[in-house]
Amino acid sequence: MKKLINSADTVVTDALVGMAAAHPGALRVDVDQRVVYRAIPKDAGRVAIVSGGGSGHEPLHSGFVGSGMLDAACAGEVFTSPVPDQIVSATVAVDRGAGVLHVVKNYTGDVMNFEMAAELAASSGIRIATVVVADDVAVEDSLYTAGRRGVGATLVVEKVAGAAAEEGRSLEQVAALAERVAQGGRSMGVALTSCTVPANGKPSFDLPDDEMEIGIGIHGEPGRSREKATGAREVARRLVEPIAADLPSADGDVIVLLNGMGATPLLELYIMYGQVVGLLREAGIAVARSLVGNYVTSLDMAGCSLTLVRADEEILRLWDAPVASPGLRWGE
Amino acid sequence: MKKLINSADTVVTDALVGMAAAHPGALRVDVDQRVVYRAIPKDAGRVAIVSGGGSGHEPLHSGFVGSGMLDAACAGEVFTSPVPDQIVSATVAVDRGAGVLHVVKNYTGDVMNFEMAAELAASSGIRIATVVVADDVAVEDSLYTAGRRGVGATLVVEKVAGAAAEEGRSLEQVAALAERVAQGGRSMGVALTSCTVPANGKPSFDLPDDEMEIGIGIHGEPGRSREKATGAREVARRLVEPIAADLPSADGDVIVLLNGMGATPLLELYIMYGQVVGLLREAGIAVARSLVGNYVTSLDMAGCSLTLVRADEEILRLWDAPVASPGLRWGE
Repeated sequence: MKKLINSADTVVTDALVGMAAAHPGALRVDVDQRVVYRAIPKDAGRVAIVSGGGSGHEPLHSGFVGSGMLDAACAGEVFTSPVPDQIVSATVAVDRGAGVLHVVKNYTGDVMNFEMAAELAASSGIRIATVVVADDVAVEDSLYTAGRRGVGATLVVEKVAGAAAEEGRSLEQVAALAERVAQGGRSMGVALTSCTVPANGKPSFDLPDDEMEIGIGIHGEPGRSREKATGAREVARRLVEPIAADLPSADGDVIVLLNGMGATPLLELYIMYGQVVGLLREAGIAVARSLVGNYVTSLDMAGCSLTLVRADEEILRLWDAPVASPGLRWGE
Repeated sequence: MKKLINSADTVVTDALVGMAAAHPGALRVDVDQRVVYRAIPKDAGRVAIVSGGGSGHEPLHSGFVGSGMLDAACAGEVFTSPVPDQIVSATVAVDRGAGVLHVVKNYTGDVMNFEMAAELAASSGIRIATVVVADDVAVEDSLYTAGRRGVGATLVVEKVAGAAAEEGRSLEQVAALAERVAQGGRSMGVALTSCTVPANGKPSFDLPDDEMEIGIGIHGEPGRSREKATGAREVARRLVEPIAADLPSADGDVIVLLNGMGATPLLELYIMYGQVVGLLREAGIAVARSLVGNYVTSLDMAGCSLTLVRADEEILRLWDAPVASPGLRWGE
């Protein structure tokens, strides 16, 4: 294992120290609690948004802390849920009197720890709502999950909920919007290589030089099938078809996220996006907005994932609203 | 070789097709000529900025086309200079009567082809100035270069020149500023793995499982030394020391770019940045601005590079000016 780290034991804290140094005016990092906050808290009376999860998926979630998106992100160990204590700490710190929305990816540990934290925070008088994102159509009940896994749609939920909170909507309204986005999101991924968790020191799984794993999870959990690696067009088809078949037929065009897993060049992500767009056109699915790049990664895994989210006019307007985070930024 | 491509022959055009689809309102892509333009040309009387180079370093240069940065980027084949015809075509298309600055990385092919294009464009009455970026302190006279190679400082040159052009400065002024930035920039990189050029189908060089290449070029050109891979702190020291020793002692703090080579997780880049900042503090070099992420990549190479650029108040003001490109975006 060759990695630009100091020690497998200090990966998360060392990265948070670097993140604090890189964004001094924008972020405040509690390195001990492993929580990333906005440097300037939002105004009193606004709903706050907290997310978090295992590290190794950057920029998700810490990179989405900023005006128009998250108020705080709790970083667990690599591929390991943050503990309730962190989440309570973040929730108490960001509450501005209007309540806090927890955005949780559907993994057993995350769901359990956010639930526990929500109970603890609620007992001290903070109003909490929770949205669980479960958009991965690849498999039900995976290594870390009961039900579907939460992946790329999480970014869209965080963006839209963040914009709604910024506008001054109530906790019930922000939570309902987040739920609508989550319900309209579908994703699937493909791996060309494994990833290597620093603490393990070796690849999480073996993948022969000529094979790919269709339906991979963001922690390297098994997917739907292992197949001979093919070209971009065929890979795109293997992602678009199951997603399109499962996509709610609700009104609205889609927001498309073509996401790199960490080690795939942008050149290849754009090639994949070109293929995906052609297939969506054939399937009669109209693209309203798109995002191509590394957003929900799996350490050094090569591969990509595709996310489609149904978006009505309200969701699109909130998607387009200004955001200023290290990982997502526009329209300031 | 496993890659998300259709064919090694169509990598660049397929990626441009995807890029056009991903940024319909912002970019106009001439796929035949392989030039990426802003969708909306800048106002008449403003200096235009054209850059370009081999593909495989995305987002450089095509991802930096947009308001406040480049007017056009010419994409060569992977790791191969664009041809004069492309550059002439881009130069003629973007000239708004105030002349065009060519930003060129110091590789023999790029320098020659941009020179030839500048002569051709000049003969049709367009005023051209050229800045050649040669910031890599690792080696003189490498595989593709006479003199030092051009790497990370190119991004800073393009950003600062782009902002100056947007303000309505003359070609002479924009070129002088670009030259000042280029002169004040120093970089060095490290590779943990090779990259694989699609047309070759195999890694560009061999690097044993426990070794790293210090001073790597962005096409996999040999660096200064091959060594046992060590931790982030030691790698940071091996980059900071030669850069600091070579950095002009001019006034001004530095803009720092901690750049991923393509396959290195953001988590590791932040760890590296934390180490770099500590070493710069020890060396008495004050950081004015920073950027951490994948900006000047080498396909699927794992590793990173460090760039320091001396920045006086004028350069910092232009660095902070609004930019809206797919790869760099703030302060709109």
